[in-house]
Parts: sequence; structure tokens; C-alpha cells
Amino acid sequence: MRVAFLGLGIMGRSMAANLVKAGNDVTVWNRSPKAVEGAKTAVSPKEAAANAEVVWVCVSDTAAVEQVLTGKDGAFESLKPGMIVADSSTILPEISVKFAEQARERGADFVDAPVTGSKIAAEGGTLIFMTGGKDETIQKLDPLLKAMGKTVIRIGDNGKGLGAKLAMNLMIALIYEGFAEALTLATKLGVDQQALFSLIQSSMVRSGVVDYKMPFVEKRDFSPNFPLRLMHKDIRLMLEAAKESGVKLPALETVKNIYDKAHEAGRDDLDYAATLLTVEELAKGK
Amino acid sequence: MRVAFLGLGIMGRSMAANLVKAGNDVTVWNRSPKAVEGAKTAVSPKEAAANAEVVWVCVSDTAAVEQVLTGKDGAFESLKPGMIVADSSTILPEISVKFAEQARERGADFVDAPVTGSKIAAEGGTLIFMTGGKDETIQKLDPLLKAMGKTVIRIGDNGKGLGAKLAMNLMIALIYEGFAEALTLATKLGVDQQALFSLIQSSMVRSGVVDYKMPFVEKRDFSPNFPLRLMHKDIRLMLEAAKESGVKLPALETVKNIYDKAHEAGRDDLDYAATLLTVEELAKGK
Repeated sequence: MRVAFLGLGIMGRSMAANLVKAGNDVTVWNRSPKAVEGAKTAVSPKEAAANAEVVWVCVSDTAAVEQVLTGKDGAFESLKPGMIVADSSTILPEISVKFAEQARERGADFVDAPVTGSKIAAEGGTLIFMTGGKDETIQKLDPLLKAMGKTVIRIGDNGKGLGAKLAMNLMIALIYEGFAEALTLATKLGVDQQALFSLIQSSMVRSGVVDYKMPFVEKRDFSPNFPLRLMHKDIRLMLEAAKESGVKLPALETVKNIYDKAHEAGRDDLDYAATLLTVEELAKGK
Repeated sequence: MRVAFLGLGIMGRSMAANLVKAGNDVTVWNRSPKAVEGAKTAVSPKEAAANAEVVWVCVSDTAAVEQVLTGKDGAFESLKPGMIVADSSTILPEISVKFAEQARERGADFVDAPVTGSKIAAEGGTLIFMTGGKDETIQKLDPLLKAMGKTVIRIGDNGKGLGAKLAMNLMIALIYEGFAEALTLATKLGVDQQALFSLIQSSMVRSGVVDYKMPFVEKRDFSPNFPLRLMHKDIRLMLEAAKESGVKLPALETVKNIYDKAHEAGRDDLDYAATLLTVEELAKGK
């Protein structure tokens, strides 16, 4: 397929590379110019999308999605009937629904296709996609989804993929916070870290989230896989979506305060695992 | 071995039954009289312990441990040099250390051996033990530990098993709260519950905690496996231990507020999974 891929961040660059590997005719665009081996490079989203059957977006926030789709030289300037726009960015579900309406008014279609999985899953093509949109449209995307992911879960109509994605990241944030608070308490109580890690791995609290982070925490290596500022942004989205739908999420609100403090401490570009440092500092009364 | 087993609650009765099955000479005692097939029944902890090599305790809180050990007709009235007392109750680590000192002053020894795992794990003898105490003492208990559990993790000296246990339950409480808030948000955003459950099970947020609770949540069956009042008690212990060691656990404090509300709503004897109802009610502005 002829695919325009917009956004070559930590996830996007590997996703685009996997589309190339699977034999697609890929044209990439990124805000700061970047190339992907085997893909053409365009100077604007509009140019990337000019000849595409599918436009795939993977950028960091709502403003960036708006810019690459409906901004000046945005992909929608090249939108033609029959084209499909798929968005793997994490944004508010209701805003995604509006993009879908705009695309349909012009005879194209739109799917929200956020992903879960680490940088390594993006590289290995083992991401999990949560899709929202029309069945037949998602079916057309199947070869592309399979090139980038191992699992595609159809959640519902437009915006529902994003609803599931926010729920998923909410769980990640709280699982990690539980680990951070448990580790901080156990350490103060004199529990050996290795013994605690063994216990976690042999018990019902074991999760992929903590399995993935434990070796980094052990080395105190907080280099970014999922940057703290992006999880912070996702938490703000969850709370915004919650507020608009009349839901209270008390533990998530508390976790947001910790991310606020981590942000103030200049940890935006570390991994979100660095919120452990903030929890430890609370213990020290900072 | 000749074992006195004190406390036949949800966990204790299965643990005692597994000691019997493994060929031990078991005498049981429970506050409200209960029997275990194949075991003798005693009228007091003192009587149960009179002829025992090992006294195993599994009761609900600090007051109950004090009562069965050092209270009137308590097991310590039968304490003799060489005896071992093992406590699987979840209590404050520092209090457990005091019991250990008292036992040692009288030539006996003491191990904290809290467990993690469900009612089903207790029945099947697949609990995980976290032990704190002297190596040689824990080795003597090995046949008993293996009769009741599949995994024994030696955490450190006295009180450290309990430190690990509090950390473990902290993680359970926060994992479940994350699930409850995620489900509440996703439902309001129109995400199908089955799709969300499939997603959870195929992604890195999957854990034994949520795997175990999901079918019950699906049926809205909140009959107790781990009663809410016991998790509530454990959370208070964690916060007490945290306060005494100068640690702040902000998300756990928030979760405690939810348990406080669930308690006020009369949910003490439901499973702790019923905190979902309280989260849902917050959403409705109750």
C-alpha cells in the first residue's frame, strides 16, 4: 500500500520502518527532518499524503495532530475520497471523533488506532493496537496493523480505541506508582530489594509493567523509554476525559500531583519510572 | 511434626488441613469453635500448644495475635525451650519483632511467615511465604512451609517477612484501584467491558490480581475471598509503618480514603473488589 507516515518519534520511527519492511510504499514526514531507510521523505504532511492510500499519524499530542492534519500544509489538504487516516497518537477521544467527522465529510475515513507496548515492541512489530472506527475500514488497514503489531483489538466505533488506551495507561500509571510506593516503604523497613523483586516476580502482583521497569530501577537508569512528560500528558487527558464525563478518579488525581512534582524537578525527559525519585523525596520530606 | 494451629479463618483452615494431609500431628484452635478433619481440637491456644513442637498462628490482626500468644490461656503459657512459633498473620513488623524477643527470652524461637495468594492457593497448598527470622529456624519449618505453599522466599531477619508482605498488599491495593478507576472511566467513555478485559489480558498491565478479580467483577459478585475489612486493616498497617519510618505514600493514602468510604457504606464483609462500587459512586457524585 502507499502509506504516508507522519511523526517519527520513539514509536513512530520503528512503526514506519516495519511498514517499509512489509513491502509498503512509504513516505515519511517529521517536524524535525528525519529519514527512514527505504522510505521517501516529504517536506510536509500535505506532500507526504499527496499520493497515499493511507495516512498514518503518530505524534505527541492534540495540538500536533491538529497541525499535521488540518494545519497549513497538513495532510487534509491532500485528502481524497477513499483515503483512510489512522491515528496512533494519544489524544482526547472526542477530538478524534471530530477529525473522523471532518474526514468523512470529504469522502475519506478515519480510525483511531492507539498502541500499547514499549519501544522494543514497536521495533519488533509486536505492538497491541486498540482500534475505533468502521469495521470495513479497519479491515482494509489489517495488513498495515499486522506489520506493526501482534494483536489488534477492535474496541468500538470512533474514539473508543482512545477510550481503551486512556484506561490502559491509567492502569500502567497506578501499577507503577504502587511499585514505587511499595519499594520505598519496603526499603525503609529493611527489606532487601532483590528479595522483594523475587517475591514480586513469583506472585500475583507480577505484571509486564513492573517486569519491564525493574531492571532499570535496579540500575537507577531512568533514560526514557516512555518519557515522563508523555505519561504526564496522558494523565492530564484521562482527567480531562473523566471530568467531561462526570467521573472521579481519586488515585489518578494523586498520581498526577506526583507527576507535577516530577515535572517541577526537571524530570520531563526521563522515563516515567523516575517518578520513583519523587516518591523517595516525599519520604525524605522534600 | 506436632503442630498447634491457631486461627481457622479463610486462609487458616485450609493451611491447617494441608498440614494434616502432609502427615503432621495437628491440634487446632479457633476463637469460635471449629474443627479440621484429622486434627485434634483444643479449647485454648495454651492447650493446643501444650505438646507442640511448632505453634502456627494465622489470625486477623495485632490484638488477636497478642491474645492467642500472650493473653490468658495463650500459647506462650505452654512455651518451652526449642519450640518454634510461626506467625502468618499480617501485623506491624515491629510488633512481630517484640514477640520474637519474648519467645527467645524463653529459649524458644519465632518466625514471621505471612503469605500471599488467594483462598484457592491456600486450599491447593500453593501459597507464597515471605519469611523473617533465623535461617536455621526457618529450615526446621521447611516441611511445614512446603505442605502449605509452593514458594518460600526468605526476606531477612525478624519482621522483614512482614515488611515484604505490607509492600505486596500495597501493590495489590493499587493495582486493583487502577483497574477500578480504568474500568469506571472506560465504561463512561463507551468502551465495551469485554473488549477492555481482552485488552488487559493481552497487554503489559495483565496481573494475577486483575485476572483473579475480573470474572467476579463481570458477574458483579463481591462475595469475600479477601474481605474488604482485612485489606482496609492492612492499608492502615502500611500507613502506620510508613509514618513511623518517615515515608509518605500519597496514592495509598488516597486509596485508604476509598476504603474508609466503602466501610461507611457497610461493605466491610464484601470482597475488597467491592471498592469498585465506591469508585463508581464517586463518579455519580455520591
